[in-house]
Amino acid sequence: MSDDYRSMWADLGLDLAAHDMLLGVLGEAYGKMYLTQANRPAGMSYFDFVMSEVHGLRIKELIDEKKAGRKIIGSYCVFVPEEIVLAANATLVGLCSGADFAMEEVERLLPRNTCALIKSAFGFKLGKVCPYLESADMIVGENTCDGKKKAYESLAQLVDNLYVMDLPQVKSDKGRDLLKAEYQRFQKAVEELTGSPITVASLQQAIRTVNAKRAAIHRLSTLRKADPAPISGMDALLVNQVFFYDNPARFTDAVNKICDELEQRMKAKSGVFPTKNPRVIVAGCPQAVPNWKLPMLVETAGAVIVGEESCVGERGTRNLTDEAGNSVDELLDNIVDRYFQIDCAIFTPNRDRLHHILEMIEKYQADGVIHYGLQFCQPYLMEALPIEKVLAEKGVPCLRIETDYSMEDIGQLKTRIEAFVEQLS
Amino acid sequence: MSDDYRSMWADLGLDLAAHDMLLGVLGEAYGKMYLTQANRPAGMSYFDFVMSEVHGLRIKELIDEKKAGRKIIGSYCVFVPEEIVLAANATLVGLCSGADFAMEEVERLLPRNTCALIKSAFGFKLGKVCPYLESADMIVGENTCDGKKKAYESLAQLVDNLYVMDLPQVKSDKGRDLLKAEYQRFQKAVEELTGSPITVASLQQAIRTVNAKRAAIHRLSTLRKADPAPISGMDALLVNQVFFYDNPARFTDAVNKICDELEQRMKAKSGVFPTKNPRVIVAGCPQAVPNWKLPMLVETAGAVIVGEESCVGERGTRNLTDEAGNSVDELLDNIVDRYFQIDCAIFTPNRDRLHHILEMIEKYQADGVIHYGLQFCQPYLMEALPIEKVLAEKGVPCLRIETDYSMEDIGQLKTRIEAFVEQLS
Ligand code: SF4
Ligand code: SF4
Ligand code: SF4
Ligand code: SF4
Repeated sequence: MSDDYRSMWADLGLDLAAHDMLLGVLGEAYGKMYLTQANRPAGMSYFDFVMSEVHGLRIKELIDEKKAGRKIIGSYCVFVPEEIVLAANATLVGLCSGADFAMEEVERLLPRNTCALIKSAFGFKLGKVCPYLESADMIVGENTCDGKKKAYESLAQLVDNLYVMDLPQVKSDKGRDLLKAEYQRFQKAVEELTGSPITVASLQQAIRTVNAKRAAIHRLSTLRKADPAPISGMDALLVNQVFFYDNPARFTDAVNKICDELEQRMKAKSGVFPTKNPRVIVAGCPQAVPNWKLPMLVETAGAVIVGEESCVGERGTRNLTDEAGNSVDELLDNIVDRYFQIDCAIFTPNRDRLHHILEMIEKYQADGVIHYGLQFCQPYLMEALPIEKVLAEKGVPCLRIETDYSMEDIGQLKTRIEAFVEQLS
Repeated sequence: MSDDYRSMWADLGLDLAAHDMLLGVLGEAYGKMYLTQANRPAGMSYFDFVMSEVHGLRIKELIDEKKAGRKIIGSYCVFVPEEIVLAANATLVGLCSGADFAMEEVERLLPRNTCALIKSAFGFKLGKVCPYLESADMIVGENTCDGKKKAYESLAQLVDNLYVMDLPQVKSDKGRDLLKAEYQRFQKAVEELTGSPITVASLQQAIRTVNAKRAAIHRLSTLRKADPAPISGMDALLVNQVFFYDNPARFTDAVNKICDELEQRMKAKSGVFPTKNPRVIVAGCPQAVPNWKLPMLVETAGAVIVGEESCVGERGTRNLTDEAGNSVDELLDNIVDRYFQIDCAIFTPNRDRLHHILEMIEKYQADGVIHYGLQFCQPYLMEALPIEKVLAEKGVPCLRIETDYSMEDIGQLKTRIEAFVEQLS
C-alpha cells in the first residue's frame, strides 16, 4: 500500500495499527480462500484487484468524489434505494461487515446475544478500521429486525450523521404507504445533504444505472444453471459482495465481461467443478465481506453453490425497477413497487421467500439447500424451521446452520457439511 | 378440584395428566413462595383464592359466559385494547405464560434462541394445558418483537382462530395512523365475532370499566411509596398478574379493598418488611404467571420491590383513557392516544421508558433498579445497556439480569442479587 493511502486513512481517523492488522488478516484469508481455487474465470482478476484495493483505490475514489462536492451515503440494508441516492448526486456504499473486530468494546454497548453482523458493524466503528464508514456523509439505518432497530439507538451516540428509515412489517396498503412516505422523506434528506434536487431525468438515469447493475448480476446468476458450474459459489458470492462497494458502471461492465467468458466456458462444457457435482442453494442471512466461511466449507467439501437466496444475492438483486414514468412521483412509485417485493424475514407473513427458494432450486437444478442463519437472528432462524419442513415434504435435503463470524465452530460445521454433501452425491 | 372441573377440562381438550402435573407444580410453588410470606395483608386472601381457582372457577365462569353467547378473546400483549373487546360484548384474557412446558416439542417449532415467554406460550398450546387458550374464540397476536412476530406464523398452524395486529415501530404520525387503522380493523373483527356492534354507550362503559381497574392498580402502586412497604413485591406482582385474568369489576373491588387495608397499615406504620429496607424497582420484560423467580429471590434476600416497570406492572397500567367523546370514532381516538403512550422497547426511539424508570425511582424512593431481561429478548436486553449507563451516571445502582424460566441459574442469581441488596443496605 502506498504512503498516500496511509495519510488518507489517517485523515479519515482510522486507527492505523488496528487497520494494518485487519488488512493483513483480510489479505491472508483472501489468498488462502480465493486465490487457491482451481479453474477460476480470468474475469475474476478484476474482483481480485478490487479486493486488494478495497480500502485503497476505492476509498481514494470516494475521497476524490467528496473533494468534487459529491456526498457519500452508507447503508446496512438493501431497502435503502440506491436510485434515490444516485439521482441526488451521491454515492451509496454498503457498510455491513463480515468480520469480528474490537469485540470487547462491542460487548460493552451491545448484548452478547446480538447477531454477528450487528456486532461487526459496531466493531468496525469502535475499532476505527472502516474507511467507508468514516467517509460517509450520512449513514442510513432502518427499522428492520429488533437487533438493528435498537442497535441504531446506540450507534447514534457513536456517529453524528445517522438517519433512520422506518420500514413496514406487513405488505398491506398501509405498509406500502409507509414505505413510500419514508422514501419521500429520504429523498428530501438526501437532497438536503447534496443540495441537488432530484429531477425526472436524474432519477430515470439512476434507475437505469442500478437496473443495469442488477441485470448484469441476473445474467451471471442465470449462467450458474449450467452443469458443470462455470463459476464457483465463492467467486459468485464475491461478485455479489462487491456489488455494494464498487462504482456501479464499472461493476456492471466487469460482471458482463465475466459473463461473456462464462458463456464461452459453457459452450466448451468446461467449468470450475466436475459435472454432476452436488449443487447447493444457500438461503438465509446476508454474507457480508469478508464472511466467506460457509461457501469455503461447502465448496472444499466438494459441492458447488449455484445460488444465494440472500440480500447479498438474489433477494437484493432479484427485481428491476420500471424505468417508465413522467414525474418524480411516478418513478418513485416504481421504486417503491420494486423494493416492496423484497422478501426479507422481517415481514409477516413472508410467503414469497419460500416460493423463491423453491423457484431457485428448480431453476438452478439444486440438489439441496443450506439454510444459513446468524446466531441470534430471530427473523431468519424462525423462518428456517417451516422452510425446512416444506423442503422435507418435497424431498429436498436441507441443512440448517446457525453460526457467527468466529472460527470456533469450524470443525463441527465441516463435519456436518461434509455429511450433507455426501448425502447429495 | 371437583369432578365438574375435570370434565370441563376434558371438554376443552386439555391433556388431563399433563394438566394435573402442571397444577401440582403450580400449587406447590405457590404454597412455598406465597403462603410462607410474613405479614401479608388479609386482602390477599382473595388473590390466593383466585390463584387456587385459576384453572377452575374462572374457567367455569368463562365457559358459562360462552354458553350465554359471549365470546372469549385471548391476547399476548398489552397493546390489545380491552376497551374494544368489552364494548363488543366479549371478555379479554391474557395468554402470556410464565412456565416452561413441553419444551422438547416447542424446540421442534421454534429456535432454541427464543425467549422463554414465547416458548412458554407454545408449550402451553402443544402440551394442551392452558384452559384459557382452549376457551378462546379468538387469539390475538401482534407484530411487536421479531420473536413474537415470526412465532405467530407458526402458531397460526396450531390454532384456527389467530388474528394478527400490525403495530408501528415509531411514534410518528404514520405510526399513530397505523395504530388507529389497526384498532378499527380489530373493532370490526371483534364485532363480527360477537355480532354485537360497538356503540358510544358500550364503548364509554367499557372505557370506564377498564379505567376503574387501572385506577385501582394505580392506587395500590401509590401506597407502595410508604416506608415500611405495606405490601410485598411478590404480592403486588400477583395482583398485576391477576389483572389479566379476572373479571374486571370484581378485580377492581378486590384491589380497592386491599388498598383500604394498606392505608390502615400505613397509618399504623406497619408493613411487610422493616423500615429502611433496601427498596428496588424491577424494570424490563413482563413477568407472567407463575414466573415469580426474580421477586422471590429479591425479597428473600431482604430487599422489597416497590414497583414493576413492566407490562405486568406500570407500563401496562400507567395511563387511563379519556372517557369524554360523542362518537365511537372520538372514543377510539382516545383509546389510540392512551395505548400509543406505551413505552414498549419495540419502539425506536423509546426515550419515555428511561424517563419513567427515573420517575419511578423518585416516586417510590427506590435505592436501586434490577433490569430484568428474558434471554434472547433483543428489545429489552438492548435497552438495558443505555439505561444502566444513565443510572450509573446518576449514582443509582443497577443490576442487569438476563434469565429464563428454568431454575438452573437460581444459585448464581441468588449470589448476584444478595450482593446487590447488600450494596443497597
Ligand atoms: S436481510 Fe432484511 S434487514 Fe437485512 S439487509 Fe436484507 S432486507 Fe435488510
Ligand atoms: S442477520 Fe438477522 S439479526 Fe442480524 S442484522 Fe440481519 S436480520 Fe438482523
Ligand atoms: S413488552 Fe411490548 S410486546 Fe410485550 S406485552 Fe408489553 S407492549 Fe406487548
Ligand atoms: S420478552 Fe421480549 S422477546 Fe419475549 S415476547 Fe416479550 S418483547 Fe418479545
